[in-house]
Amino acid sequence: MGKIFVNVGMSLDGYIAPEGMTLEHWDDPDYKNWAAKWGALMGWAIKLQYLRENLKLGPGGETGPVNDMIKSTTERIGANIMGMRMFEAGERSWPEDAPFHTPVYVLTHEKREPWIRPGGTTFYFVNDGIASALEQARLSAGERDIRISGGADVIQQYLDIGLVDELEISLAPVMFGGGRRLFENIGEAVPAYKIDRVLDTPSATHLRYVRA
Amino acid sequence: MGKIFVNVGMSLDGYIAPEGMTLEHWDDPDYKNWAAKWGALMGWAIKLQYLRENLKLGPGGETGPVNDMIKSTTERIGANIMGMRMFEAGERSWPEDAPFHTPVYVLTHEKREPWIRPGGTTFYFVNDGIASALEQARLSAGERDIRISGGADVIQQYLDIGLVDELEISLAPVMFGGGRRLFENIGEAVPAYKIDRVLDTPSATHLRYVRA
Repeated sequence: MGKIFVNVGMSLDGYIAPEGMTLEHWDDPDYKNWAAKWGALMGWAIKLQYLRENLKLGPGGETGPVNDMIKSTTERIGANIMGMRMFEAGERSWPEDAPFHTPVYVLTHEKREPWIRPGGTTFYFVNDGIASALEQARLSAGERDIRISGGADVIQQYLDIGLVDELEISLAPVMFGGGRRLFENIGEAVPAYKIDRVLDTPSATHLRYVRA
Repeated sequence: MGKIFVNVGMSLDGYIAPEGMTLEHWDDPDYKNWAAKWGALMGWAIKLQYLRENLKLGPGGETGPVNDMIKSTTERIGANIMGMRMFEAGERSWPEDAPFHTPVYVLTHEKREPWIRPGGTTFYFVNDGIASALEQARLSAGERDIRISGGADVIQQYLDIGLVDELEISLAPVMFGGGRRLFENIGEAVPAYKIDRVLDTPSATHLRYVRA
């Protein structure tokens, strides 16, 4: 059975999204300076050859161990799970062939038909909770892994019931001072983790934790 | 002029002290399991030869790069600044020759004469705020560095006014689920940091950030 994992960028002070980075302010990047903050968090990623290709940002880009890491992380995914807010933001930002190339299970209260994108991404809208989304993702993924893509509240729900096998955090030396924290509302059911790998680069420390 | 720095252990979810680790429950280590959580956070440290010697925990202990790091961190300190709660907890726990061997400025509302310990530690009780404590610490430290020892609220106050030059965080793969966060109540004055050094060990990732 595949692993369930999280892979996010996190600010030094623990946020995965700055204050103001919401659908409401998507077209107002100066609002609380959210776009610059997000850029400071994820700048290392959009320079990578693999992500540039995947997000249709253009040719070229950095190769090397971080690029290899992102490529192998992306390629091991058999299904994604995400929250509705993340989907709605992505709906505005992703290229037509959305950068997942797997089934994506979107947790929502909205009833909506599957949305098929070119390139292998189909969004399924799940109305009956996180356990159901996981079950459907498992059926799709087979032996491959499932990424809990975000946002923070969705990650926290899976963490809180002890279902996250692996945590991959790219810790960037930026301070947000506010926003959505990765770790919040988490009880005692969280499994113990151990450090599996640290990839040390000038722009982020790529930390990988697996169940102890 | 010396640098102002912070050096703390932090849980993966961002806490430097677990819930329940307060003076009130100091003699009740089972309360909210605080002592086991603290042990999981700092277990790597109390195995080190240098800390064992400094805290009078006995002979032996690990040597190597982490031990060297702790030794050089301790030896560069010309003065410490701490909050009253940290002092009160330490007052119960430190050996008679408290493990600082420098002047220690304790932020408090209490008026109290300096408390001189054998081994070079003198505690001075500062009643007129964090700027005054820093000024006094600078005078004592000369060219040497000043450590903002803790707790979280004191570190946050110095971070918030942009005075922390270096942040050293030993990030342990433990989850507290609650307690005192390192990063909270911090505004926009925080300087930009860059990664200076990452020391990768199985029990903690020792991250060092300096002003960018």
